[in-house]
Amino acid sequence: MRTVTFLPGYRKIDVERGTTILDAAQRAGLNINVVCGGQGKCGKCVVFIQSGRTEFDVQKYGRFFSDQELAKGACLACETFVQGDLHVIIPESTLIQEQKILVDGQDKPIELRPSVKKYYVELQPPSLSDPSPDLSRLLWGIQKSGGPIAEKMYAPLEVLRVIPGILRHSEWKVTGTIALVPGGYRLVDLQENDTSKRVYGAAVDLGSTTIVVYLWDLVTGKMVSIASNYNKQISCGEDILARVNFARKNGLDRLQALAVESINQALTAASNTAGIDREDIYEVVVAGNTVMTHMLLGIDPAYMIAEPYVPVVRRALSVASGRIGIACNPNGGLFLFPAVSDFIGGDIIADILACGMADREEISLLIDIGTNFEVVLGNREWMFACAGAAGPALEGGEVLFGMRANPGAIEKIAIDPVTLDPRYSTINGIRPRGICGSGLIDLLAGLLTACIIDRTGHINTGIDNPRIRKTAHFPEFVIVWARETDIGKDIVITENDIKNLIMSKASIHAACVTLMKQAGVTHKEVSTIYFAGAFGNYLDKKNATTIGLIPEIAIGQIKNIGNGAIAGANIALVNRRARKILDEIAYRIAYIELNAEPSFMDEYTSSTFLPHTDLTLFPMVQEQLESCRVRRG
Amino acid sequence: MRTVTFLPGYRKIDVERGTTILDAAQRAGLNINVVCGGQGKCGKCVVFIQSGRTEFDVQKYGRFFSDQELAKGACLACETFVQGDLHVIIPESTLIQEQKILVDGQDKPIELRPSVKKYYVELQPPSLSDPSPDLSRLLWGIQKSGGPIAEKMYAPLEVLRVIPGILRHSEWKVTGTIALVPGGYRLVDLQENDTSKRVYGAAVDLGSTTIVVYLWDLVTGKMVSIASNYNKQISCGEDILARVNFARKNGLDRLQALAVESINQALTAASNTAGIDREDIYEVVVAGNTVMTHMLLGIDPAYMIAEPYVPVVRRALSVASGRIGIACNPNGGLFLFPAVSDFIGGDIIADILACGMADREEISLLIDIGTNFEVVLGNREWMFACAGAAGPALEGGEVLFGMRANPGAIEKIAIDPVTLDPRYSTINGIRPRGICGSGLIDLLAGLLTACIIDRTGHINTGIDNPRIRKTAHFPEFVIVWARETDIGKDIVITENDIKNLIMSKASIHAACVTLMKQAGVTHKEVSTIYFAGAFGNYLDKKNATTIGLIPEIAIGQIKNIGNGAIAGANIALVNRRARKILDEIAYRIAYIELNAEPSFMDEYTSSTFLPHTDLTLFPMVQEQLESCRVRRG
Repeated sequence: MRTVTFLPGYRKIDVERGTTILDAAQRAGLNINVVCGGQGKCGKCVVFIQSGRTEFDVQKYGRFFSDQELAKGACLACETFVQGDLHVIIPESTLIQEQKILVDGQDKPIELRPSVKKYYVELQPPSLSDPSPDLSRLLWGIQKSGGPIAEKMYAPLEVLRVIPGILRHSEWKVTGTIALVPGGYRLVDLQENDTSKRVYGAAVDLGSTTIVVYLWDLVTGKMVSIASNYNKQISCGEDILARVNFARKNGLDRLQALAVESINQALTAASNTAGIDREDIYEVVVAGNTVMTHMLLGIDPAYMIAEPYVPVVRRALSVASGRIGIACNPNGGLFLFPAVSDFIGGDIIADILACGMADREEISLLIDIGTNFEVVLGNREWMFACAGAAGPALEGGEVLFGMRANPGAIEKIAIDPVTLDPRYSTINGIRPRGICGSGLIDLLAGLLTACIIDRTGHINTGIDNPRIRKTAHFPEFVIVWARETDIGKDIVITENDIKNLIMSKASIHAACVTLMKQAGVTHKEVSTIYFAGAFGNYLDKKNATTIGLIPEIAIGQIKNIGNGAIAGANIALVNRRARKILDEIAYRIAYIELNAEPSFMDEYTSSTFLPHTDLTLFPMVQEQLESCRVRRG
Repeated sequence: MRTVTFLPGYRKIDVERGTTILDAAQRAGLNINVVCGGQGKCGKCVVFIQSGRTEFDVQKYGRFFSDQELAKGACLACETFVQGDLHVIIPESTLIQEQKILVDGQDKPIELRPSVKKYYVELQPPSLSDPSPDLSRLLWGIQKSGGPIAEKMYAPLEVLRVIPGILRHSEWKVTGTIALVPGGYRLVDLQENDTSKRVYGAAVDLGSTTIVVYLWDLVTGKMVSIASNYNKQISCGEDILARVNFARKNGLDRLQALAVESINQALTAASNTAGIDREDIYEVVVAGNTVMTHMLLGIDPAYMIAEPYVPVVRRALSVASGRIGIACNPNGGLFLFPAVSDFIGGDIIADILACGMADREEISLLIDIGTNFEVVLGNREWMFACAGAAGPALEGGEVLFGMRANPGAIEKIAIDPVTLDPRYSTINGIRPRGICGSGLIDLLAGLLTACIIDRTGHINTGIDNPRIRKTAHFPEFVIVWARETDIGKDIVITENDIKNLIMSKASIHAACVTLMKQAGVTHKEVSTIYFAGAFGNYLDKKNATTIGLIPEIAIGQIKNIGNGAIAGANIALVNRRARKILDEIAYRIAYIELNAEPSFMDEYTSSTFLPHTDLTLFPMVQEQLESCRVRRG
């Protein structure tokens, strides 16, 4: 045995005399650039022998080097044979570099480390002197081209069956696709000729309403297209409960097929936009809530909708995409995010991955708001999570002129504290038709800081302004006069609307505080609040604090991660290491059942004030309110 | 952390205070007998605390022990909690014992270590205080019952889908089947109630003519039934070449289906005989030649029948039995023996496993004789192998009254050196119809030692005996007079028959010597010769040496292993560790292409004498021949 030491890292490996330096380097875990597969043809695997005896044919391969380089010991790693103990310098240009890429919503670049890679090889055809089997020949070729060790790779039956035909038809020039799987590497595909630049992956946000697909080029690390689709399961029920009940009556098959069809349509659209073949998509990473992922896999979600709310499986799952009919390469892999419980699903774990809170020492609070809300509090050592129903008010339901974030919805609004006239903007800039969640929060904050409403949400009908009206039912405030609208009537907010909004915001705030109490953490110790979901994207952070939707922290420390589910799925797709920690994150989270926490109801009651009964918890808001009170006199 | 030391082995493990001794023992890799799954109900997990502080409720569990035992520190491992550093004695009766079993043709018992095991568990139903997912609940239960660590087990999609229904329908009393797979453990099946005693496996010898199945109870380690079937591929061609050509013209599907059907019929017959459900067969281990296993898997064998004779795959393969339609549990595993080349297949690797030559330091020679023969020489460090065509003579072809080993075949024969009258026995004891391989070898040896033929195989027509006749074609020797036969004519052996027999035996002997020369080994260094295959079973070892079929070694060192393919498959089925070394054995073997070895033809020529040109290599035979010459004068 001879010892080869690789500089600059001083990595050592013992090898038999006669081993090539390329083999030695690969065994030492160094990824050397070998375009020709180690045949002495490409001249890429340049190394310098610092000391020790080697065998290298300078006559034959000298053409790759200048005299100066040769004088420094330059040689090709693939054609240089170890004779004695060696010190070998590997220049940086000879190593395959880790690529770093930017993922949407991520401040720092992420390493491109997909779990699938293609290797193009030109093999020597078999002969009487080398009659090794097709599979060995292929795997050795892939190993020589920088792939995993041949013995660690295996071929599933469907690939084994096509190997002999493809090798011979292509005249032994093929591209093998290798995927990392538990226990080794899987040869998932074999194609004729060089297709090594065509490796794609898809990240999927499987929402109950909308499905979003990001398509990535896993060779360059570039996102190539985006597509979305509505979730066709809606035909079996608007909300999750209705769909689970549909499945109970009619079986799961239809719901499963609809989920797959919805994803496939988005995948097809994204592939068409990018001009790629879906067969070249080798990996699909899906983040979705627990019921959605159960349905996608055809696993009964029935036991999640009633006490004691039990999912069948919570851990991350890898299945062959062909098994459930996903329209990518039939041997491709499907990876599903793990869940904590039926209420904290893979979408929330994706949020956590996207915001990076599980990596940091500082404590963060993550809030994902929809019809339901999920809150996660913690850091890299511990995490608590809870979920609850926010009520539909923040999505525009149970509010007279509330609407979803569609064209014509007032999305931003401010109220002049003197004239009480609002300044607003609508989605698409058309005449207003109603007001959506982010507008409602602005409005509530505006009404409060203009002293139009008091801290209990009652409209001060004593103010003399045509916008403040008493009606048969509830007092109301006119946001937009009929003539300025698209709907021909006054857009108003009633005291009842305000009550509903306060109940929604109180649930969320009380949930945050309940987790903080569980963890023994005060709002001063929370370094960052993350909003996930579309709602957060349009939210005015200051106004959300003003109404007491969230605990008060420095406004600059409130961040939107946007669609955290897709952001997390993107990260897990491009970096297989990120995937490894997901189960760990999921297991780290202690789920708090709010209904079982006696303190939650107290916190809720305290939170039904604007911003809260205890103003000392909201010093900035207190200042704001005082200045407004002073102004109004 | 507390340190628990287990006696008598002094195995140590650090655990958190409050851990049960059962958990500590399992983490230390000790298999403790826990029938009730660690619920304090069965009283099987008895241990004795030698020193250290524990918590154990003697009032509640004292009933399992005598006062004397309690005084010695007896307690239940599952209900005793570690408080301080401990020394714990585990009595032998508390450990799950390794079971040793006898396998056909094996001198020493083999450890029963199947790769599949069932665990019966009675789970606590989920509740609001423990809403963990169905899968976790199940896997923890299995871990507690002595199974693998829950995190190392995974459930494939088809099992995940049935888990919630089965758990609830069985009222949480289920049996999980766990199989060891690369990278972890697979939950291959879930059944209601306790079926833990029903785990079966099948070993299959997939021959081109005959298929043999041995069915094993993998809980008791007992063989429960045997079945055989002819290989229905015969309808596509008598020999392998014809079948490969059939596949080239008509595709592989029919041949694959016929192989599966033939195995399934034998499996069904064996299951019916044993009275078991085929669904309880979780593992099938197949040994067959390389073409047969390619065809079984639907992998094209076309490139094996022409230069440069390349198989698609040689390594051992594990595939889901359902993937190719084997009629056992659909999630069961199919394991195929590795091969060396197209000529040295999995059946020969099975022979090697069965005779144990790869474990020993002494050098052995293994000979498997059929229409083709395979020879392997080596020990635990190195191995050479070759294969060739023996010609049909030894199977009764190309010999006038030769026949297969069917009823009426003379299988043993000796010739009185004075009267030249033969004494013989036939298969089934009926009147003779012809003579089969083992009879032919006896006959050849008898003719030689009675000096009826000389060392070149010529009949000494000078001897005055009615049994020796000259005819128009060749001189002949009458073995049985017509009146004693079942066929109404004299059963004879002609000089031409003898020539064909000598050519067959010469090929085999020359192959043996070629391997010995390659390895630099003389016949004195060969400690044992193994005959594999039906032929060897009936062979007279001394006579085989006398005619020079094999190199001369001490007769007692010549052994028959019978059907080595099924014997090897049996071992690999009952002991998963045996399976691990098979690829290693296959890779250790250097295949020698006889046609490419110039010395082979010389050896062949020298071997066309009886026993050989060089009598000094056969001292025993030399002595035999001299005494006969002396006798005859």
